[in-house]
Amino acid sequence: MKSLAWSSLFGQGAERIQASTIRELLKLTQRPGVISFAGGLPAPELFPKEEAAEATARILKEKGEVALQYGPTEGYAPLRAFVGAWLGVDPEEVLITTGSQQALDLLGKVFLDEGSPVLLEAPSYLGAIQAFRAYGPRFLTVPTEAEGPDLAALEDVLKRERPRFLYLIPSFQNPASGLMPLSKRERLLEMAMEKGLLVVEDDAYRELYFGEKRLPSLFELARGAGYEGVIYLSSFSKILAPGLRVAFAVAPKEALQKLVQAKQGVDLHTPVLNQMLVLELLKEGLPARLERVRRVYREKARAMLEALDEAMPQGVRYTRPKGGMFVWMELPEGLSAEALFQRAIAENVAFVPGGPFFAGGGGENTLRLSYATMDRERIREGVRRLARALESLLPLGTR
Amino acid sequence: MKSLAWSSLFGQGAERIQASTIRELLKLTQRPGVISFAGGLPAPELFPKEEAAEATARILKEKGEVALQYGPTEGYAPLRAFVGAWLGVDPEEVLITTGSQQALDLLGKVFLDEGSPVLLEAPSYLGAIQAFRAYGPRFLTVPTEAEGPDLAALEDVLKRERPRFLYLIPSFQNPASGLMPLSKRERLLEMAMEKGLLVVEDDAYRELYFGEKRLPSLFELARGAGYEGVIYLSSFSKILAPGLRVAFAVAPKEALQKLVQAKQGVDLHTPVLNQMLVLELLKEGLPARLERVRRVYREKARAMLEALDEAMPQGVRYTRPKGGMFVWMELPEGLSAEALFQRAIAENVAFVPGGPFFAGGGGENTLRLSYATMDRERIREGVRRLARALESLLPLGTR
Repeated sequence: MKSLAWSSLFGQGAERIQASTIRELLKLTQRPGVISFAGGLPAPELFPKEEAAEATARILKEKGEVALQYGPTEGYAPLRAFVGAWLGVDPEEVLITTGSQQALDLLGKVFLDEGSPVLLEAPSYLGAIQAFRAYGPRFLTVPTEAEGPDLAALEDVLKRERPRFLYLIPSFQNPASGLMPLSKRERLLEMAMEKGLLVVEDDAYRELYFGEKRLPSLFELARGAGYEGVIYLSSFSKILAPGLRVAFAVAPKEALQKLVQAKQGVDLHTPVLNQMLVLELLKEGLPARLERVRRVYREKARAMLEALDEAMPQGVRYTRPKGGMFVWMELPEGLSAEALFQRAIAENVAFVPGGPFFAGGGGENTLRLSYATMDRERIREGVRRLARALESLLPLGTR
Repeated sequence: MKSLAWSSLFGQGAERIQASTIRELLKLTQRPGVISFAGGLPAPELFPKEEAAEATARILKEKGEVALQYGPTEGYAPLRAFVGAWLGVDPEEVLITTGSQQALDLLGKVFLDEGSPVLLEAPSYLGAIQAFRAYGPRFLTVPTEAEGPDLAALEDVLKRERPRFLYLIPSFQNPASGLMPLSKRERLLEMAMEKGLLVVEDDAYRELYFGEKRLPSLFELARGAGYEGVIYLSSFSKILAPGLRVAFAVAPKEALQKLVQAKQGVDLHTPVLNQMLVLELLKEGLPARLERVRRVYREKARAMLEALDEAMPQGVRYTRPKGGMFVWMELPEGLSAEALFQRAIAENVAFVPGGPFFAGGGGENTLRLSYATMDRERIREGVRRLARALESLLPLGTR
């Protein structure tokens, strides 16, 4: 076989696309017997299997020729209408995307050039870093914590830089699990309005709150304040099923139109059957479903926190999430989460080291634990294994 | 509402992303009563509605937790294995994509930089032009006709230029409906091997041949000749259903790995349920299904050609397709297909003007007719309407 020197054929853009180290690690987590806190995989016991089978049969019987045919790039009109009514926006401002990951890619395509400054939390969602990185931007970061991004640091960056947009996950951040309080959301919005800063709000976990109610999104606050500079992303992956790959973006029409044009070139449209199925599932008892989703994740989070409180040695810090799917952990300074990962895998438990979530580097002593996938018994057992792995790594004095 | 000056926020890349004029035209074709030869929409009567409903119920019952969960970026392993066995390649060389459109975008992301030369047929598939254009390449073209690209012109271009790749649709080309004969495929391959030219072969219509058998693809010939420089794309859109958005790319592992990394950033993975459904549908009597698909399109093509032979005035040339979904038409020099479109819409019949299919401009007197979507009666009626529209446009003497 005459081989080609592929790497010499690739464009310069290809150099920016790299295998995520996490992806390689995740392969290890699929070994039988491993309790995985690594992937952010939604709880499979929540998947609407029977409802989906019934709804699909109905859709194919009644509207099979629509479900299986090419569809409009903007999305299936009745689903756009549902999302519009749900969020209180014009359906013409809604774009259905093939997962939120696609929305991130489209935002990169439309807003980022090589060298463009783009502002992220540190840490931030790895998929966003990956999607944006393909466009070769210059990453700026502000530290984020249990109550969201550091606004003083943000103000400081905005004095010096004019980022194309600020990408934020204000509710139940991935990976750091933070929740921005209302007052902080309002202050951030004021800063954005003052500077004319475009904010991309990723609200994938919007319904996964453990408290009494959902905080208003930046998007809602912005609309209330008459500011159109917030693009809103959310998904059905966490409340229905991620394998369907149906999510949405909301943006003013001029911006949406450009995103639609970009989407046309990347996959023509999101599968029509999947959009129709999501709509049917949403129409069937959504409030009860959301209650159940919240209860399941709340109980899993509690199981993990109880186990951590019991098993973790001194000097290890971790968040107490108010929603979402993750606990974020900081090991004592100088300890490496990647080294811990090797020990943990030997104990048959897995997590994601935090370093890759920092677009600007750092975070070597941090890690993300997902409680979403495992049942409570395995969560408890996994935390015990993690504690054993950690103790084998800690200097003697602190054991 | 405080408006933003969106166009000043967009990146330079956004300027390359434009609404296709065709997209705007297609909106007109959806008026009730219009007989549309415009969109390349597969025949809805061929969609496996009942089989899909049964298969989905079975999948969700037996493997619902896999079907609805996140899946691997490379694709659902049993579907990759099926494609590998079908094409006689290693499943590790197969990437499942969200429609072939996504494969085109990924190729752009991996191989094209701003200003990179890329070589296409003129005319070529509009979706490929759109996908590649987003990366800002420099388009080179070679004329293509009923027997595929002009090899003398190709040789000439390759003397002067070193394109990142040559994008070709050797079988039942979209839009020009050409079929490259075997000897020409062999000669083209020799040229590619001599120059180390990467060829991207889009074989979306591979099974839609009207003759006795399928010609070997460039990919098969290249593998037979020990040359790995052909990346092969095909799709289940034309033989099962486009609305599922399941297609595949085949490439040597080093190239495939880079495409996988790129795909991870753009949509994580193709919906798992859709991949499992396609696999089930493929396992159920594929040969009989393909026979039926071929028969239906063959009969539709014949209906269109008979009607055209009867109704078209002198001076109008059109192809006699040996497969696929399209007839390509050339109006007498000086006549505009866009002007004809306006007359045609007034007669309630639609097609796609050919100009946008030429990446380098030209082709104003060409147009594409799809016989795929309409039944034979409407095909005949549509052609009669088209003839009336055309006659109203022709100079008196030629009527």
